[in-house]
Amino acid sequence: MTLVETTSREDLYPSRTPHLVPGWLRRQEPTVYPSDFEGPLSDGQLAFYDIHGFLCLEDWLDDASTEELKRESDRLGSSAQIDGERVVGEPDRNVIRSIFEPHATNQIINKLTKRPELAGAARQILGDEVYIHQSRLNFKPGFEGKAFDWHSDFETWHVEDGMPRMRALSCVVLIHENFIHNGPLMIVPGSHRVYLQCGGQTPENHYRQSLQKQQYGVPDRTQLKELMSQHGIHTMLGKPGTVILFDCNAMHGSAGNISPFPRNNLFVVFNAASNALVAPYCGLKPRPEHIASRSFQTL
Amino acid sequence: MTLVETTSREDLYPSRTPHLVPGWLRRQEPTVYPSDFEGPLSDGQLAFYDIHGFLCLEDWLDDASTEELKRESDRLGSSAQIDGERVVGEPDRNVIRSIFEPHATNQIINKLTKRPELAGAARQILGDEVYIHQSRLNFKPGFEGKAFDWHSDFETWHVEDGMPRMRALSCVVLIHENFIHNGPLMIVPGSHRVYLQCGGQTPENHYRQSLQKQQYGVPDRTQLKELMSQHGIHTMLGKPGTVILFDCNAMHGSAGNISPFPRNNLFVVFNAASNALVAPYCGLKPRPEHIASRSFQTL
Repeated sequence: MTLVETTSREDLYPSRTPHLVPGWLRRQEPTVYPSDFEGPLSDGQLAFYDIHGFLCLEDWLDDASTEELKRESDRLGSSAQIDGERVVGEPDRNVIRSIFEPHATNQIINKLTKRPELAGAARQILGDEVYIHQSRLNFKPGFEGKAFDWHSDFETWHVEDGMPRMRALSCVVLIHENFIHNGPLMIVPGSHRVYLQCGGQTPENHYRQSLQKQQYGVPDRTQLKELMSQHGIHTMLGKPGTVILFDCNAMHGSAGNISPFPRNNLFVVFNAASNALVAPYCGLKPRPEHIASRSFQTL
Repeated sequence: MTLVETTSREDLYPSRTPHLVPGWLRRQEPTVYPSDFEGPLSDGQLAFYDIHGFLCLEDWLDDASTEELKRESDRLGSSAQIDGERVVGEPDRNVIRSIFEPHATNQIINKLTKRPELAGAARQILGDEVYIHQSRLNFKPGFEGKAFDWHSDFETWHVEDGMPRMRALSCVVLIHENFIHNGPLMIVPGSHRVYLQCGGQTPENHYRQSLQKQQYGVPDRTQLKELMSQHGIHTMLGKPGTVILFDCNAMHGSAGNISPFPRNNLFVVFNAASNALVAPYCGLKPRPEHIASRSFQTL
């Protein structure tokens, strides 16, 4: 892999560039790619994903694997030490918010990500071999789990990581039941088709703060309101073992959790092999490997 | 009205008293009182309220009155100045959270509270003449509306205001649509039948902070989790003009609002005339009139 020079290449999705007046850009790529890969998704499911940019698969994982994942995430959550790198805390408290790269450090999670229900579904949608761009366990404890503000992952992955095109997706495995009342994932259906450019510029080593609370790559509120007034907001509910797939550019967020019921999820981001990272479009040095993989193996 | 001496009277619901190990007490009063008052609620609605401690009345207010209320609350919300007394701001920002006593300062809201759909329903449930113990407009703006943590209103009204018994209710008029995703009111069905004692003691002039973020009169998390594991959580959704009635001792709260859609509500607390305030059970001086009325007129 060679890093492309930022000055000579085309940037299809400029954002946080100097003097930019943030606007809406149209998506340049398909959402579901032509594919010869066998996979677990039906034509109806692929069509739903294409239109709405997400898909909620109930009872997708068997009970034994779901239980095993819960055990591992509980174990990791109670033994990990916040270091601001792989283990990120909440902004104002000594509570774990995310553990990065569990697929690289934990055999059970590693195996899980390779299964046809996860990697297979990703290959089917992206029409290519896939690799893991990022994985993380997100912890949203009862009573205190904090909100994730609205964002498109692709905006950050493009600007800060150099992901050239929209050919990636997030695969979320629900570890606890996601109720209306424990801060479930919310998504704007159809939002994957438009790219909201963001203002501001990216400071160096911004990622340490941004993983706690995003300050750059934050969409404009007037644009967000217009988007959601047009498309509405869909709330993703489901029992443990439910899997949610959503497009890299889908606008999403989640509220805080004041209920006593924790809501932990495993996130696995699959990227198409043909969409591997180049130099970040913001011109800064790449974020570390455990946040954005550059030395990948296809699954 | 005479203030009863705190030392000589019986306290049916001790909380925040010295050396208290907080436990659960059983409710000593009915929820729906025997009544000869005519009112708008059916026997089925009264039975539902009795069992669950709340009732959600869709399309309860006509469209014209709902529109008028929205206009008035918008006007008050944009013209009021935060003073820490009648107009309370968010803990960390210059944004209005609540305006107290709008029924005393605004003719349209005053008339609304007296209507049979509101005061009449309250008389029917409480089996007595009623007066307004407290009213407020609660503002939960899009993107930034903050959470209200779990609490029983009665605990505070008893300890800090001297409300002797559970013979009061909150009547909430929805000004905006309450969706899943804009921080709707959540309630624990059946929780009105148990009283969760709280630890700690009440500092003087505590109300100024407590209206922003409650630090005393906060139920124990282990108890809350047990309560909600038994009874679940019900989320109250509804269009503008929906009215929610809930018992003074029902455990309730609401999450923050990250959606762009504001969620403003009018709260009117009706108390039975026979349940008028005595001296606060915490032994401190009463909170001001605009938070807890002592010079009331029945409606």
